[in-house]
Amino acid sequence: MSSPLPTPPHCIADFCLIPLGTPTASVAREIASVQRLLKTSGLSYTLHSAGTTVEGSWDDVMRVIGQCHEMLHREGVVRIQSDVRVGTRVDRVQGMGEKVERVERLLAEGEDASREG
Amino acid sequence: MSSPLPTPPHCIADFCLIPLGTPTASVAREIASVQRLLKTSGLSYTLHSAGTTVEGSWDDVMRVIGQCHEMLHREGVVRIQSDVRVGTRVDRVQGMGEKVERVERLLAEGEDASREG
Amino acid sequence: MSSPLPTPPHCIADFCLIPLGTPTASVAREIASVQRLLKTSGLSYTLHSAGTTVEGSWDDVMRVIGQCHEMLHREGVVRIQSDVRVGTRVDRVQGMGEKVERVERLLAEGEDASREG
Amino acid sequence: MSSPLPTPPHCIADFCLIPLGTPTASVAREIASVQRLLKTSGLSYTLHSAGTTVEGSWDDVMRVIGQCHEMLHREGVVRIQSDVRVGTRVDRVQGMGEKVERVERLLAEGEDASREG
Repeated sequence: MSSPLPTPPHCIADFCLIPLGTPTASVAREIASVQRLLKTSGLSYTLHSAGTTVEGSWDDVMRVIGQCHEMLHREGVVRIQSDVRVGTRVDRVQGMGEKVERVERLLAEGEDASREG
Repeated sequence: MSSPLPTPPHCIADFCLIPLGTPTASVAREIASVQRLLKTSGLSYTLHSAGTTVEGSWDDVMRVIGQCHEMLHREGVVRIQSDVRVGTRVDRVQGMGEKVERVERLLAEGEDASREG
Repeated sequence: MSSPLPTPPHCIADFCLIPLGTPTASVAREIASVQRLLKTSGLSYTLHSAGTTVEGSWDDVMRVIGQCHEMLHREGVVRIQSDVRVGTRVDRVQGMGEKVERVERLLAEGEDASREG
Repeated sequence: MSSPLPTPPHCIADFCLIPLGTPTASVAREIASVQRLLKTSGLSYTLHSAGTTVEGSWDDVMRVIGQCHEMLHREGVVRIQSDVRVGTRVDRVQGMGEKVERVERLLAEGEDASREG
């Protein structure tokens, strides 16, 4: 019997997907396929050089990452390994963009403070 | 509209869950709660010093990790970050125990070969 | 005796550092300190919402991440956990910016093709 | 100029190394090579189904993981991606074995308590 607990209504996940046993060491084609699938999901996402960050309910986010695996398997990739960093919080809602802004504000304040010395 | 693609029927996920903003640096109490929840899930799992490995369908595995987040939030942890390594393959079914056995067999063969050499 | 093998001359590492047992769930102050330390390192780095990507020789990159841990310990954080995704390749040198460009080029080509199709 | 801060004298790192662009989806051969290299390093390490945990000074641990990359590159693997979870703490020294023991003790106590209850 599965536990009746729900999953979190909101999360931010950053995933780095790696196909194994592919003829070349390049993964750009697979990552492009992943971006196209994410686009159809309706979730907010952003690509960076070490992964893709996606935001939404836990179930929606994890489903779309699983669908990325399934899609690539159907395209012929026999084995896939992903690293997923996923965060949830209940103290406040924080979008993925706000995290960087907050750090940059602290950095700017620090520089102002040292200029004002 | 969500993509109609299914998620993989089988995966092995290894996750390391970290509570943030807790009064102590110890996470043993939270990890013990996670083990209890996993026990009720019916999935195969094993605890090691750097995480917990769990095996099952993509949806079941990801649901139970999400439930771990939700359970700890309800126990008062305001923020949780998990690192999840998740692998899927379609060339063959491989349980989590077999991976280590395969490497150990290769190591043993290598030692036999060098003794014979 | 340590093996005489060298470490790779170039790598791209993306790390997400998490302080444990801190009074608040916010990590912005710690991440700002990390950015300041990276700035003094002379290495190329970029902050995104799920971590910081840094590029350089294996030894330089790993040293600076270790220094980030040490710095935060000295600032009073008793326990720190980082997730580091690190990649090396010998087929060609690829900077962290080029990875995203390559995927975006593939996506743009795909859209051109479907428009032309 | 590199910062004069030292790196932590002790850490526990768990790494999962993935070769890219190899002819097969199996990684057992590469993981066996990694275990052999770790054996020569003199560091404590243990293999589990989702990675290898290694313990020592930050510099020693990160050097040996880098040497694993370099070794596999020399064996012909053109691209390697590792996920490394690394933890440091200054409140007390905790070996990798103790973490699991502590959780298991908590679980056993909970079961005793509910039997007595």
